[in-house]
Amino acid sequence: MSKNTRVLTGITTSGTPHLGNYAGAIRPAINASREDNVDAFFFLADYHALIKCDDPMRVARSRLEIAATWLAAGLDTSRVTFYRQSDIPEIPELSWILTCLTPKGLMNRAHAYKASVDQNVAKNVEPDDGVNMGLFSYPILMAADILMFNANKVPVGRDQIQHLEMARDIAQRFNHQYGAGREYFTLPEVHIEEEVATLPGLDGRKMSKSYNNTIPLFDGGSKQLKAAIARIQTDSRLPGEPKDPDEAHLFTIYRAFAGQEEVAAFRQQLLDGMGWGDAKQALGDLLENTLAPMRERYNDLMAKPDQIEEILQEGAKKARREATPFINEIRQAVGLRNAVAVKATAKEQKKSAKAARFVSFRDEEGRFRFRLIAVNGQELLLSVPFDNPKDAGLVSKRLQTENINELLIKNEQDCCFDIKLDGQLVANGFPASSLAELDGNIIFLNEAIESMKA
Amino acid sequence: MSKNTRVLTGITTSGTPHLGNYAGAIRPAINASREDNVDAFFFLADYHALIKCDDPMRVARSRLEIAATWLAAGLDTSRVTFYRQSDIPEIPELSWILTCLTPKGLMNRAHAYKASVDQNVAKNVEPDDGVNMGLFSYPILMAADILMFNANKVPVGRDQIQHLEMARDIAQRFNHQYGAGREYFTLPEVHIEEEVATLPGLDGRKMSKSYNNTIPLFDGGSKQLKAAIARIQTDSRLPGEPKDPDEAHLFTIYRAFAGQEEVAAFRQQLLDGMGWGDAKQALGDLLENTLAPMRERYNDLMAKPDQIEEILQEGAKKARREATPFINEIRQAVGLRNAVAVKATAKEQKKSAKAARFVSFRDEEGRFRFRLIAVNGQELLLSVPFDNPKDAGLVSKRLQTENINELLIKNEQDCCFDIKLDGQLVANGFPASSLAELDGNIIFLNEAIESMKA
Repeated sequence: MSKNTRVLTGITTSGTPHLGNYAGAIRPAINASREDNVDAFFFLADYHALIKCDDPMRVARSRLEIAATWLAAGLDTSRVTFYRQSDIPEIPELSWILTCLTPKGLMNRAHAYKASVDQNVAKNVEPDDGVNMGLFSYPILMAADILMFNANKVPVGRDQIQHLEMARDIAQRFNHQYGAGREYFTLPEVHIEEEVATLPGLDGRKMSKSYNNTIPLFDGGSKQLKAAIARIQTDSRLPGEPKDPDEAHLFTIYRAFAGQEEVAAFRQQLLDGMGWGDAKQALGDLLENTLAPMRERYNDLMAKPDQIEEILQEGAKKARREATPFINEIRQAVGLRNAVAVKATAKEQKKSAKAARFVSFRDEEGRFRFRLIAVNGQELLLSVPFDNPKDAGLVSKRLQTENINELLIKNEQDCCFDIKLDGQLVANGFPASSLAELDGNIIFLNEAIESMKA
Repeated sequence: MSKNTRVLTGITTSGTPHLGNYAGAIRPAINASREDNVDAFFFLADYHALIKCDDPMRVARSRLEIAATWLAAGLDTSRVTFYRQSDIPEIPELSWILTCLTPKGLMNRAHAYKASVDQNVAKNVEPDDGVNMGLFSYPILMAADILMFNANKVPVGRDQIQHLEMARDIAQRFNHQYGAGREYFTLPEVHIEEEVATLPGLDGRKMSKSYNNTIPLFDGGSKQLKAAIARIQTDSRLPGEPKDPDEAHLFTIYRAFAGQEEVAAFRQQLLDGMGWGDAKQALGDLLENTLAPMRERYNDLMAKPDQIEEILQEGAKKARREATPFINEIRQAVGLRNAVAVKATAKEQKKSAKAARFVSFRDEEGRFRFRLIAVNGQELLLSVPFDNPKDAGLVSKRLQTENINELLIKNEQDCCFDIKLDGQLVANGFPASSLAELDGNIIFLNEAIESMKA
């Protein structure tokens, strides 16, 4: 990774993390955040949690538990930016701004939405039955999460690739529409987590709440941890019979938490006929040793929610130090400017407009035209074609001497202008994109021309 | 209207107001805001403007011009709350929260969206061609505009009735889902503006930018005002010939700005054969007299955008004095609580839980059940039916003496619980809505029962 790659990770706040979440997501993400040159952002995606969970207590508890879990697992908030999505009001604001330039067709194609529709069609009910607008528009909120902080990389599972592509698409639309040459948003790169260990659950399938086969991480303490380990399914070989470690998910779990030497020794013991009871005891000891200090920190934090709150508030401050000025730039770009700024910008343009110039040229049909070019190379107006250069010259001269305000007529699109002399159209143009950057409108053109007289 | 009826009016910020906007919308709204017992909210709907207008300069100018217009027209900001939508970050936040409980089917049925689809189908292109997500989800933002301030009445045209109904629908969903007896949101009433004068334009059709038949309000000063009046279409009767005032839209415009006596006199002059030139002169004088003082205020304001900005910032402060505490209540309701509050609530519940009680009853089938009722009357659990009261009593007793934590099993919906004794289901329930208010989950139930033992 290049220097200061910003890596952004969202953590859904519904439910309580289990051992599989720790090994598969939390631990690798925390390790990655410790790499040099990585500027890691972690956030609790609690606005997303509202889409699927309408149980307020569960949302509230989960925010707390997940924050405590990541902190207990070693997230270093002096290195990373760790915040709750819902503490950053700039995110829903950006989400709305992006909503206004996201085609509905893009959302229609989202896999998660299409899957719901397919299920409904199969059940012979309305295609949108039970689909809420949160589910439908959530890729836009996700784009806002990512673009708000100009993340370079977003580690996601394969099912999230499409959302990342949508975020890139939306970013490109904004840059194109409002950028006028500036790339407001960094296009985030997908970072697919291929090698992440998927921990098996009690029954050997992937450990997942939906399979009801999880081993708790901190929940219920060492007692529940042991109880869960006792329920790990094994084959029926007796003590003394050799075991096949590669067929035992108990071994897979062990391997995820032990060093190389320990793993090799455990493998040998199983091959040598260690009983499953002893094997479970060994796994229990290993996990208890690993988790106990974290669990203690976790319990400490859960007992002092004001500490968690303080850490998250600090994180929000840190995040908003970027989000607040950036959303202001975005607001400027789309036209949500404060009144003084509208005027001030006009003044600045007056200065910059000093170098605006008329440029005459022959068009493809060999006829004579001129342009007004601003200092940054933007085209401010384009004349109609004239049959000879003298006529074009006379008109461009009159535009510089007469009161331009009186010659400008908003055309039907209402974002461009016609310029008429003696009732005749002599120039038009003003594409919205150049006005966007120059921010000057009639006043600007007037002043640009006035400034050339001086 | 009852005392302190809150009336909320949104003003779209695209384009420059013309005379028809003034007579049809601005003047009546300002007059209505002067009535006793009316608590009027006016806002510049600039987030909405982004849906249809991607020209930042036009959005920026329009915000400024429209604010200046309403102020110049006599809006008294000491009486009303006058703010820009985009200065209230609580609005997009609320919009997202409401998005999560708005069924997509509701948006599918919105007239504005359906009209776009119909046009596309007629053109034989994709149904969603050119439709952006802003257009599709804008009724949710409008609901947030209204519900944020618990408006009682929203004056709208007939085409907006459906949006108001959607806002009511969304409000009811929230109240039902999260209210636990509290009506967080007032259901806004539609106030249809039947009697609003629709001013005719130059050609006699409704004055509208899209017909290109408008008379400017302040734009271009008295010169442009006169020039526009000169273009009003009349019949070809010569001076001296009697005119039919009721057929002359010039007269309709006159009537909208003159007192009764003036109108009667003008009517008589037309019947007596006043020439159209003189009639236009009279209309011009009338409008100039009416508009000139406002125009002067308008130009003053436009020359001092810092004054406009200050007024709008004051308005935003005033609006946020309501929005900020209210969004915090909404956040609490949906579970976006700060960590300390989660803990504090749990403690409070411990206290309030002291009065929780088991209540036994016979159900409709004559079988025996019991409930656990919290101090506020919420049902915390509901037993399965038992054939005799003794069995029911034994089970409720065991729930009070055994460790309830070990008996609770999250059920498949994951927001409710099954309670099992000796592997048998004895109670369930915990609807999300009661947990919402009680905010207690397992811990709470545990504590409720523990507290009864003491």
